[in-house]
Amino acid sequence: METINIGLLGLGTVGSGVYHLLSRENKVVQERLDAKFQVKKILVRDLKAERFFPVERELLTDNAAEVVDDPDISIVVELIGGTNVAKQLIEQAIAKGKSVVTANKELMANFGGFLLDAARDRGVDLYFEASVAGGIPIIRPLKDNLIGNKFKQIMGIVNGTTNYILSKMATGREFAEVLAEAQQLGYAERDPEADISGSDAGAKIAILASIAFNSRVSAKEVFTEGITRVTAKDIMYAREFGYTIKLIALAKEDKGMLDVRVHPTMIPLTHPLAAVNDVYNGIYVIGDAVGELTFLGRGAGSLPTAAAVVGDIFEAALNIKFQRRGRSGCTCFRSLPVKSIDDVKSNFYMLMEVADQPGVLAKIAQIFGDNQVSVGSVIQKQSSGNVAELVFMTHIVREGNLRRALKDIEDLEVVKTICNVIRVEAAENA
Amino acid sequence: METINIGLLGLGTVGSGVYHLLSRENKVVQERLDAKFQVKKILVRDLKAERFFPVERELLTDNAAEVVDDPDISIVVELIGGTNVAKQLIEQAIAKGKSVVTANKELMANFGGFLLDAARDRGVDLYFEASVAGGIPIIRPLKDNLIGNKFKQIMGIVNGTTNYILSKMATGREFAEVLAEAQQLGYAERDPEADISGSDAGAKIAILASIAFNSRVSAKEVFTEGITRVTAKDIMYAREFGYTIKLIALAKEDKGMLDVRVHPTMIPLTHPLAAVNDVYNGIYVIGDAVGELTFLGRGAGSLPTAAAVVGDIFEAALNIKFQRRGRSGCTCFRSLPVKSIDDVKSNFYMLMEVADQPGVLAKIAQIFGDNQVSVGSVIQKQSSGNVAELVFMTHIVREGNLRRALKDIEDLEVVKTICNVIRVEAAENA
Repeated sequence: METINIGLLGLGTVGSGVYHLLSRENKVVQERLDAKFQVKKILVRDLKAERFFPVERELLTDNAAEVVDDPDISIVVELIGGTNVAKQLIEQAIAKGKSVVTANKELMANFGGFLLDAARDRGVDLYFEASVAGGIPIIRPLKDNLIGNKFKQIMGIVNGTTNYILSKMATGREFAEVLAEAQQLGYAERDPEADISGSDAGAKIAILASIAFNSRVSAKEVFTEGITRVTAKDIMYAREFGYTIKLIALAKEDKGMLDVRVHPTMIPLTHPLAAVNDVYNGIYVIGDAVGELTFLGRGAGSLPTAAAVVGDIFEAALNIKFQRRGRSGCTCFRSLPVKSIDDVKSNFYMLMEVADQPGVLAKIAQIFGDNQVSVGSVIQKQSSGNVAELVFMTHIVREGNLRRALKDIEDLEVVKTICNVIRVEAAENA
Repeated sequence: METINIGLLGLGTVGSGVYHLLSRENKVVQERLDAKFQVKKILVRDLKAERFFPVERELLTDNAAEVVDDPDISIVVELIGGTNVAKQLIEQAIAKGKSVVTANKELMANFGGFLLDAARDRGVDLYFEASVAGGIPIIRPLKDNLIGNKFKQIMGIVNGTTNYILSKMATGREFAEVLAEAQQLGYAERDPEADISGSDAGAKIAILASIAFNSRVSAKEVFTEGITRVTAKDIMYAREFGYTIKLIALAKEDKGMLDVRVHPTMIPLTHPLAAVNDVYNGIYVIGDAVGELTFLGRGAGSLPTAAAVVGDIFEAALNIKFQRRGRSGCTCFRSLPVKSIDDVKSNFYMLMEVADQPGVLAKIAQIFGDNQVSVGSVIQKQSSGNVAELVFMTHIVREGNLRRALKDIEDLEVVKTICNVIRVEAAENA
């Protein structure tokens, strides 16, 4: 039986999962490929680092050339992360005629078009299923299974750390406390910035939007707002309105423009993503033919992500065996502009603390009206001393208008503080 | 640009959806294939039948040979259903060197191995994504994306009709009334037998089990029990225990044997499939690497099913363009026996009406004990006159033992009736 040699770049969390899955016997792979996988070389940073699983020393190297330049290696798997060394090594592997599999969202969200073109020009494959939502099959289903559809929108919970935090906050606990717990449990990094700022999710929705709408969206074009301002009280009030709050990454096409963004979002409790809790991820797609589709599963972790990588390795291997590499190229043949956040329209929830006295609401309402912000409901939640809490839900309004209104409202003497402003994905703008 | 000619067999609900999707411009398909689809011929039963959408008369034929023998047609799409004419025409198309796409679960569940082998031997493709769960991408994800996993189990709500009925019954309404409503709404056939008996779901889980466990399971090997005996009261009691009742199709591998069955099942309210309501379908998979995955969407309907068919047509077309047909062959290289239902182990819920007098429970408990049926809890629900309702929940027991016990219990004079026995998929046997 033929052997297909694989080189790994990186042996961290995902790398060791991939090594494990490739090392065990897989009869399905053997039957379908009439070949088997063999890990030939693994690039590691530190040859002497302690490993928590058995790995033959001679497989390891700290010299990248021993992986990307080895003529016996036909598939290179990049699991280093980042956009510097990883990009350079992938380019080198492609130049050497190797197919590449990567789990690197940051790289694909910033240089995906460039790398996919390079792979196509060289007649090799570049697969990246694991870069979004870990173990959930989403990229190939979007690209292939669902090709008969025009996509209306994609919404995803694609960051497990923030979803864990928001899930726990839904029980009344506050952000800082839950973040500390998540860090202890290993669900949040010591430096949690990329997760809680929404930038991790931003890279992922850039990738999904590029595929669904056939137009390259890069990470920096995605508006992102993190979860640090969300409070347990917001989640409680959301629930009273029939909503929950999730960090939603979404993409829609609207009149030749793309609306791509990541922010805390109120979604109806009946929404398929509302029940996605803890570190789970979920992706919700509306296609014009298929209707609503939801994919739920683990978005991170060693073996779930490794499983997605192995699926890509298999696909790359099939193409090698059947001499059909190079068809996975970039599908972004359109070039749609991304809307400025000011031009995006949605419903909004707002929580304000105001002076508990007559005429306050009239002043605020006047400013909303002057800025074409139409309010759907206002509820006075509670008052302590001379301060009252007001919760507003707007109809669909242009975000720029709302921002203008809020600036003026902030200046009102009777307004103590605008505690939070959260976008709402209601049924009406689905 | 090259044209890929497609022949349709059938122009019913799904056929007209496929015709619609293939007839509209699809730039993604054109970009990726450098070719476009064209429907060249459509087999219909009645040339003069009224159509509710525009279709050129010269596309229609009532002579199958004009589709399956036409050398210009490279992909034949079978949407007739049934296992007679459909099978014969697919064989003929394969023999003529055409790739075939079908949505025919019955055919694939009974003759899938035979047809896949025929396709492989002839070097053409046979795809059938639409045969299970309509628009939900499941077959290709299982076969390809998830190939790095060993599957532990698959559970599905794969019949929209029965799921609609059970969802409505959860509001307290009874089976017959809801069935009549479903028939009026077009969610149930005039002859609902295949749906409510579980045989439709049986064919689908036979297909999924064959793929996940690489061992051919045919429809007739699947134990099926329909939903006609489920009552609104059962669903109400299930809810009190934290469960809901769904028609679940499931497949597991256990010590070299397969456990494949369809029956009303109590699943925890927290299970990802518990929230799948109305005509929606859901499939829940556990892979040893990826963990839990759930796919939710529309399991039937013209366009959702057609979208899956078009995804397959695209795949077949790619293989034609890149001269790589014939790799979609049967993946059932193992041959695992299917367990007899008597040997299956699970938890059970039972509702009995018994004489409301001392000693009854002792008699029943004695019989359970004699048959190694271990009862987890018993609750007396209500009594009217001299009749009491008893609800039992068992620990995991062998079904054969339970059946033996129930036979003896039925014969007790103090037992008025065993209203229902429903299998429970608890967390402990996941």
